[in-house]
Amino acid sequence: MNDDLVAHATRELVLANRILAREDVIDDFGHVSLRHPTNPDRYLLSRSRSPVAVTSDDIMEFELDGTPVDQRGRRVYSERAIHGTIYMARPDVRAVIHHHARAIIPFTVTKLVLKPVFHMGSVMGATVPVWDSQDEFGDTNMLVDDLPRGHSLARALGPHRSVLLARHGACNVGHNLRAAVFTAVYMKDNAAMVLASLPHGPVSYLTPGETEKTAAMLLSDMPLARAWDYWLTRANFAGL
Amino acid sequence: MNDDLVAHATRELVLANRILAREDVIDDFGHVSLRHPTNPDRYLLSRSRSPVAVTSDDIMEFELDGTPVDQRGRRVYSERAIHGTIYMARPDVRAVIHHHARAIIPFTVTKLVLKPVFHMGSVMGATVPVWDSQDEFGDTNMLVDDLPRGHSLARALGPHRSVLLARHGACNVGHNLRAAVFTAVYMKDNAAMVLASLPHGPVSYLTPGETEKTAAMLLSDMPLARAWDYWLTRANFAGL
Amino acid sequence: MNDDLVAHATRELVLANRILAREDVIDDFGHVSLRHPTNPDRYLLSRSRSPVAVTSDDIMEFELDGTPVDQRGRRVYSERAIHGTIYMARPDVRAVIHHHARAIIPFTVTKLVLKPVFHMGSVMGATVPVWDSQDEFGDTNMLVDDLPRGHSLARALGPHRSVLLARHGACNVGHNLRAAVFTAVYMKDNAAMVLASLPHGPVSYLTPGETEKTAAMLLSDMPLARAWDYWLTRANFAGL
Amino acid sequence: MNDDLVAHATRELVLANRILAREDVIDDFGHVSLRHPTNPDRYLLSRSRSPVAVTSDDIMEFELDGTPVDQRGRRVYSERAIHGTIYMARPDVRAVIHHHARAIIPFTVTKLVLKPVFHMGSVMGATVPVWDSQDEFGDTNMLVDDLPRGHSLARALGPHRSVLLARHGACNVGHNLRAAVFTAVYMKDNAAMVLASLPHGPVSYLTPGETEKTAAMLLSDMPLARAWDYWLTRANFAGL
Repeated sequence: MNDDLVAHATRELVLANRILAREDVIDDFGHVSLRHPTNPDRYLLSRSRSPVAVTSDDIMEFELDGTPVDQRGRRVYSERAIHGTIYMARPDVRAVIHHHARAIIPFTVTKLVLKPVFHMGSVMGATVPVWDSQDEFGDTNMLVDDLPRGHSLARALGPHRSVLLARHGACNVGHNLRAAVFTAVYMKDNAAMVLASLPHGPVSYLTPGETEKTAAMLLSDMPLARAWDYWLTRANFAGL
Repeated sequence: MNDDLVAHATRELVLANRILAREDVIDDFGHVSLRHPTNPDRYLLSRSRSPVAVTSDDIMEFELDGTPVDQRGRRVYSERAIHGTIYMARPDVRAVIHHHARAIIPFTVTKLVLKPVFHMGSVMGATVPVWDSQDEFGDTNMLVDDLPRGHSLARALGPHRSVLLARHGACNVGHNLRAAVFTAVYMKDNAAMVLASLPHGPVSYLTPGETEKTAAMLLSDMPLARAWDYWLTRANFAGL
Repeated sequence: MNDDLVAHATRELVLANRILAREDVIDDFGHVSLRHPTNPDRYLLSRSRSPVAVTSDDIMEFELDGTPVDQRGRRVYSERAIHGTIYMARPDVRAVIHHHARAIIPFTVTKLVLKPVFHMGSVMGATVPVWDSQDEFGDTNMLVDDLPRGHSLARALGPHRSVLLARHGACNVGHNLRAAVFTAVYMKDNAAMVLASLPHGPVSYLTPGETEKTAAMLLSDMPLARAWDYWLTRANFAGL
Repeated sequence: MNDDLVAHATRELVLANRILAREDVIDDFGHVSLRHPTNPDRYLLSRSRSPVAVTSDDIMEFELDGTPVDQRGRRVYSERAIHGTIYMARPDVRAVIHHHARAIIPFTVTKLVLKPVFHMGSVMGATVPVWDSQDEFGDTNMLVDDLPRGHSLARALGPHRSVLLARHGACNVGHNLRAAVFTAVYMKDNAAMVLASLPHGPVSYLTPGETEKTAAMLLSDMPLARAWDYWLTRANFAGL
């Protein structure tokens, strides 16, 4: 039964990879992981390749410190520290996504604050902190490629669902895989909507009450199932 | 013969679902309905699923108060109240669309007024009111998921063809299905044109006379047939 | 041999229709015509349907006053007056395109002047006049659907290769079909480049000398053949 | 063995052509070349056709002065001087790309300075000079179609990886083919990110230290292999 659970989780994770590629959240770099379905001290993540091309055979198992359980010579993502350190810090989190979706970049290089501007954007959370590798680590190659940087980023994420990385990208987490994907897709769309609205005068964001109620509704099973069905249909049409 | 009419209406409604998905009017959420061809106290609407994936088997019949006629365990859209309340208030309306097309969002979160800026935009009407769920209902999950909210929204729509939902999306209606689809597609394009023009100085909108004459021409049978043929061709090429 | 010429012209015109659809110049409305290869007092134009779907069987022959030569019950474009009146006024013109490419709309609703900003944009010409149906005809349905409006528009075009229609769209002409298509595609791209550049300070346009020399080079046979080959490849990949 | 190396280089160059077309770096005009794998005084470049359609049979060999080694009646790019003059000036360069990617055009027609704004943009280099054909050559057809213009452009490029051509486009170079493609793709994306960020207040660019360290990492073999795999997957899905 454990095997069945892992096989199912692997399949879902492959689909999440394809969906995030199709929906322009992740391009050549970036990745999505899933906490192991029976062992919370491990997570599943593809070997080092672009999500658009990931298959079941690429999915590997990792310790939370990033050690591959059964590497068999496969190359691993250098930024896998992002995933393990968030799983350590956040027992409630079962899926983590790291990406460079273009619409969020302006919020990582200016003083603009990213807030929910339409109901779907509520899922990213009322507060989206920004982490800057300069603050603790100075000039680097900008990757989160060791545990100290991972822990630093996880601290910045805190109890939230989303965190921005200055001049780099973002992470989203979820209580399950679909919630994480939903959050990443709609953080991206919400960012684009804010950018499109700002030139046209003061912008009305969702109230805290609207954000909380709407996110709770959208991250429940039925909306997540409907969105998942939609993304799979689109990924299929794209031949992914 | 009644059966033939319903079968035909069902087929057209499936095509409208696919077209609205292909033309980026509706994504995972949002829906399109059609008043029942022989019983004006009912309407046709898909079960709860994304328009990109809707087939004939998904089309259900509803009372105007949202009661499914023959549910057979199928999940229904929680926002179907939008459709029934508009059909109650507007005997002239035979099709209703609810969507979150991205280009219209900035008009729902700023003081920008959406007006026809090029001839095709005339179809949305000279006046596009804005409804805000905060005004009567305060902090909610932002869905129009009961009759009181539906009636409130229908009042805001009034005699018009389009209404915006603050921080949420829009609705469009038509005297037939093609007119509603045409109105939704071109409200979206018109919104994008206004946003693209505003940074470059005062914008000249259509005069009231131009808006009325042009909309009357565009919402007549021949232009609607040409656009429908176009959208079907595109949806086919996309494998939808 | 006359038949061969007409068959060849028809085939090329069908390809131009598909290319203009694929390159997002023409959507559901808009059209492209070709002067008859042996009778300069006639032109070839599709029956009333969207270019994305046009086939050889749709191509009809028209007198310059818009009379179909052999209608056989087919519906004709109401705006065909655009084509005939330009062919009357401009013996040098062998192809005419009318479209509503989105990027040019802002130039038809503001005081922005459309000028060549990158070398490819030179083909639209140094001067792009704007015609407004209000000036001579007041409130209308905004179509150029009779000869007086066509003549008015042709006067506005004058000796140029491009003309904008206020709150409506544009026309491009060419000394052959490929030149007209090239001009339409790159007027669109040039417009988008101007819009993208203006927010970032004073814009340097091509000098008159650069515009003339570059356009002469680009509208010669070799560049036109290379672009045509490119567009056909793309249209094929799109399944058109 | 020489033949094997040339066959391999030819295959890679064809893939680079298709990738640059798929990733919207090169459209109908523009080209990519590769220094000959065994004879540094020659380079490989397609005959005159759009990269989207290039096959192995189109790849030709050129002397650095632009003389085709075995022309067999094939038409050659008029701007091949760009490639030869850069190979002469820069022994470290093994691949050259010339393109008109839309996002970089605003930086060629305004005073905007193009700098790395997110980590992926580091690859274009901290300094991107601008060359203007007006400065030395006055009004021209704007092509770099003889050796004097090529040498002038190569001087402007200097020791950098990227150079902009005023009112025209850009060139990117690499120590190998994948590095050049990577640099072109991400210069384009970085330009788009700068344009999207500037309206929203002062922009924080990468520090010189971040730029150098991040570029060194991204232009190493593993990231280049991952990106290449990604681009091939996308080009395949597009039927290219």
